[in-house]
Amino acid sequence: MDKTVDLPFETALARRALAVEASLRDLLGDRILPGEIARPERLMAAMRHGVLNGGKRLRPFLVMETAALFGADGEAALRVAAALECVHCYSLIHDDLPSMDNDDLRRGEPTVHRAFDEATAILAGDSLLTFAFDVIADPVTALSASTRAALVLGLARAAGLGGMAGGQALDLEAERKKPGEAGIITLQAMKTGALIRFACEAGAIIADAAPPERERLAEFGSAIGLAFQLADDLLDLTSDAETMGKATGKDAAAGKATLAALHGGNWARQQLVGLVEQAQSLLEPFGERAELLKAAALFIAERRN
Amino acid sequence: MDKTVDLPFETALARRALAVEASLRDLLGDRILPGEIARPERLMAAMRHGVLNGGKRLRPFLVMETAALFGADGEAALRVAAALECVHCYSLIHDDLPSMDNDDLRRGEPTVHRAFDEATAILAGDSLLTFAFDVIADPVTALSASTRAALVLGLARAAGLGGMAGGQALDLEAERKKPGEAGIITLQAMKTGALIRFACEAGAIIADAAPPERERLAEFGSAIGLAFQLADDLLDLTSDAETMGKATGKDAAAGKATLAALHGGNWARQQLVGLVEQAQSLLEPFGERAELLKAAALFIAERRN
Repeated sequence: MDKTVDLPFETALARRALAVEASLRDLLGDRILPGEIARPERLMAAMRHGVLNGGKRLRPFLVMETAALFGADGEAALRVAAALECVHCYSLIHDDLPSMDNDDLRRGEPTVHRAFDEATAILAGDSLLTFAFDVIADPVTALSASTRAALVLGLARAAGLGGMAGGQALDLEAERKKPGEAGIITLQAMKTGALIRFACEAGAIIADAAPPERERLAEFGSAIGLAFQLADDLLDLTSDAETMGKATGKDAAAGKATLAALHGGNWARQQLVGLVEQAQSLLEPFGERAELLKAAALFIAERRN
Repeated sequence: MDKTVDLPFETALARRALAVEASLRDLLGDRILPGEIARPERLMAAMRHGVLNGGKRLRPFLVMETAALFGADGEAALRVAAALECVHCYSLIHDDLPSMDNDDLRRGEPTVHRAFDEATAILAGDSLLTFAFDVIADPVTALSASTRAALVLGLARAAGLGGMAGGQALDLEAERKKPGEAGIITLQAMKTGALIRFACEAGAIIADAAPPERERLAEFGSAIGLAFQLADDLLDLTSDAETMGKATGKDAAAGKATLAALHGGNWARQQLVGLVEQAQSLLEPFGERAELLKAAALFIAERRN
């Protein structure tokens, strides 16, 4: 039994976030690993700026909790979780760039290209992405080689041309040519859905769970990924910059198509209820052990920032 | 015995390049892999533009020839070679960006951000980098999981913060603050040396060669990596844009420190002779089978573009 089950959700999330933050701080420290020639000071500072920023660490939480569901090794799961967060943070750094979303603020702090410069931000993102695969593939991540290779493959496919990066490309195109509903669904499944889906699937991979259980966790991830995006769209429709710590209303201002904008806030809120139910019912077979993940589904749908 | 041994070097290089080009064309085609949601058209076009450009495919050649040295599976080596070329091409796409080297031409064609746009170029690079790890980790690359994981780790470490990407960061800093000789050596070992070193080591990893042989191949890679950079610096000192198909003399114009600029062309040419000898002598234990790789060392030192 996982000891965290009885804790309220937000306490559990914060506790996991602390562990992830410590792991990231250690991984991005000054200690040089075998095969590294040097760790350039300014580049490392930019990487830390983009990563050690007090994020909620939701994706790492999902990796660690889904792994715990199967009783998998916590240390290995923590490294995989940290790697996945590196990929998430790289995507934020690159998305914030002047030629992309051109954002000056992220979680109330200057974005990496504002705090450093554009070239350094690009390289910090590149380096975080690369480093994620380093961390997972490293035998220090105490999992079998076949599990590490499966994690690398799953992460690459979720983050790459047919997933997150491809989704960002479609999002940029959407500013020029508004996509229809099907286009929006594809775009969002790629841009935000794929990595959240993989975060949940990763726990099952780490634990070497049977394929049907892996698929069940991936489906859970898809449902909460959709909920995450819908909640985000709703927030963009209704929130203000003070709450978010970043520019908001930008999607609407840019005429960006979202499902919430297309069908309205009420429809979106109804969808969210259905997605939470769907996500939670997928976890029924795991009984009490899944309480925190069920709470995560609700948290994601109801989040206010 | 490898049948290519008796062919002149440039024919062998061109033959390997054709195979790599075909593999890259296939990998970057429209066929969607399991787990990919879509392959966005414009993004894929930008990736192809940055990759399918008639490059010499020197790094893939090194992967395939070092693998062949140990009699390793050619198909698996070809996939690893193609993955490594994706990483090389991603680095060129990002290095060419306006905020980095700001180059308009690459191999006589518009750079990716000129042919498409800056955001698409960043995402094409990100996607190529990610895809490289996908290709290597995929069980379709018919190597053991532990070999695939070792290749992912080696590639990530060579390409990341302590290797190629870190070297580019140091190179940008070098424009502001000229590094001394030790600084230049570190910068170049990271920026260009690490990936060439890994290309040679990769063959030994693919073949599951004994650690001393793997180290020998890596040292060979280091020697020809140094030669590659020195030859590049010499070309930058002496060549013109017509021969190179890209802007030249830029390093000197930007006051960029290189060893060739520091010690002069004659010193650089002498160093090159020594490096070729060193590289070739490292291959002595492999006898005739290593003739092509020995020729590669000479080719790299003497190349004119």
